[in-house]
Amino acid sequence: MSKPGIAPLSGKGAVALTREPASGVDAFLGDYLDVAGLAPGLDDAVRYALLGGGKRIRPTMAWWCGVACGAPGEATLPAGAAVELVHAFSLVHDDLPAMDDDDLRRGRQTLHVRSGEAMAILAGDAMLTLAFGALRHTPPGSDALPGDVVAALVDELVAGTTGMIDGQIYDTLGGLDESLDDTARLEAIHSRKTGALIRAACRMGAILGAHRARLDDAARDGAIARLSAYGEAVGLMFQIVDDLLDVESTREQVGKRTGKDADAGKLTYPGVHGVDRARGEAERLGEAAAAAVEPFGEAGKALRELAASLATRAR
Amino acid sequence: MSKPGIAPLSGKGAVALTREPASGVDAFLGDYLDVAGLAPGLDDAVRYALLGGGKRIRPTMAWWCGVACGAPGEATLPAGAAVELVHAFSLVHDDLPAMDDDDLRRGRQTLHVRSGEAMAILAGDAMLTLAFGALRHTPPGSDALPGDVVAALVDELVAGTTGMIDGQIYDTLGGLDESLDDTARLEAIHSRKTGALIRAACRMGAILGAHRARLDDAARDGAIARLSAYGEAVGLMFQIVDDLLDVESTREQVGKRTGKDADAGKLTYPGVHGVDRARGEAERLGEAAAAAVEPFGEAGKALRELAASLATRAR
Repeated sequence: MSKPGIAPLSGKGAVALTREPASGVDAFLGDYLDVAGLAPGLDDAVRYALLGGGKRIRPTMAWWCGVACGAPGEATLPAGAAVELVHAFSLVHDDLPAMDDDDLRRGRQTLHVRSGEAMAILAGDAMLTLAFGALRHTPPGSDALPGDVVAALVDELVAGTTGMIDGQIYDTLGGLDESLDDTARLEAIHSRKTGALIRAACRMGAILGAHRARLDDAARDGAIARLSAYGEAVGLMFQIVDDLLDVESTREQVGKRTGKDADAGKLTYPGVHGVDRARGEAERLGEAAAAAVEPFGEAGKALRELAASLATRAR
Repeated sequence: MSKPGIAPLSGKGAVALTREPASGVDAFLGDYLDVAGLAPGLDDAVRYALLGGGKRIRPTMAWWCGVACGAPGEATLPAGAAVELVHAFSLVHDDLPAMDDDDLRRGRQTLHVRSGEAMAILAGDAMLTLAFGALRHTPPGSDALPGDVVAALVDELVAGTTGMIDGQIYDTLGGLDESLDDTARLEAIHSRKTGALIRAACRMGAILGAHRARLDDAARDGAIARLSAYGEAVGLMFQIVDDLLDVESTREQVGKRTGKDADAGKLTYPGVHGVDRARGEAERLGEAAAAAVEPFGEAGKALRELAASLATRAR
């Protein structure tokens, strides 16, 4: 599916783009869990759910948003760790029998199948708590973040997480305004369910990048606004591609159960618009994301490549 | 059960002690939920679980810890709201069928019985998220907290919440060192399960009180240490009294299912030590708590009354 010059995330060209942020956030998370010192059974469950081979897309976005602001990507690791902890907690809770009732995740047993429902509920709760703690974790050799930066990150993490939960509610339990048509409902659901946390990842990366690069207030606010727009476009695109993969791929390719959206009668982009229009919309959003970060010039190049790569990802 | 001069929490003498913090935190929480603007179904579920008549013991402790530092109790409301949100989330998740499977809480249906399991899981997640957001909520007419205060509060809230979850794991799923005797196991479980959040409430109240009262660093650290010791003693005492109530009371008196600890074969203070020794231990801890705050003189009077009141509470 890849176009000339656009490397899919799993392909060779994107390796340089993605490995450094992913391994950076894994090291940060491992170090933080060592310090956090959870009860042994809980620690084991959290590590299983958290360090089991996710794509680290949100930390990767935060990383390159920091780079776009002129900072080293490492400066964004507290944000990357926090959003990855929220993402991982949400997967564990969404997989529960009372929710999506999934037994497979990232090609392995879901946590409640492996460790029981009670442990899965509590491990999810612990990961959500640790997401906020990660904003305060200072690996050896780095300085604690100033309080005003921590406070700004808390705001974004709360907004991203409650937005995600709102989206999950609308998607699975309903409650959206009845007068909305399917297109508007889809956007209302997915701008929250997937989009809110991706947007938060980008904004938090921008906040940390702007802090490290010592941008003045106006430059920081401008960068946050552009990277927020980038995150919104990529977030929606990401969900459309997810829907397309759910329709088109097998379980082995994606590493989780597929075809489940249609089985559950859920609104999806290919379901509402057809596969071709959904694919076209994903491409359009990828281009909108790239345009949003055009003003960063060379510093925004990785974000443009990342958007292109996510538009054509195969899992 | 009340001694001369010690008013039980539900009795006349304690009303002046408890009404102001409880109504203050309820107003703060209601105002924050208005601003947070959750999806309507989720907002409804959160309000049901959160504003359904809890005793507000943790916010009350935070309040009087602030007063002990020389601040108005209102200064502690962000802490009170945060710990109450964590407490309420933990009750919702603990009541789930995969956990304690309770149908009654505070004399009403538990949230999953009323609104379904999926909503209860998600509402718990939202409340835990909002606990951190509450630290950033500024009601009309008040100033935002400085970032370093927010950061210190985040540390305490993470420690209190992960400690509580650790305790729940040890209590329900095991994992404690096998060589510990029953007395040590009880303390290891309950210093975490109930104690960690009560300790956090006291420390967070102290942090906010010290900030508002402009204590210097040494005075602040001393106050936090004393109020932390108070919280540890009261937290353990609170759990012993809870165990005693579970043995001795009826469902109607307590507003939740009773006798369930014995049914579940859990370690309890009366189970390990007998009712009389457990009651004696609760009294001893109440006195230790009072002694910890003796140096505050008149400013610590409410905390001493609160400890005495909790030692003799009837529900």
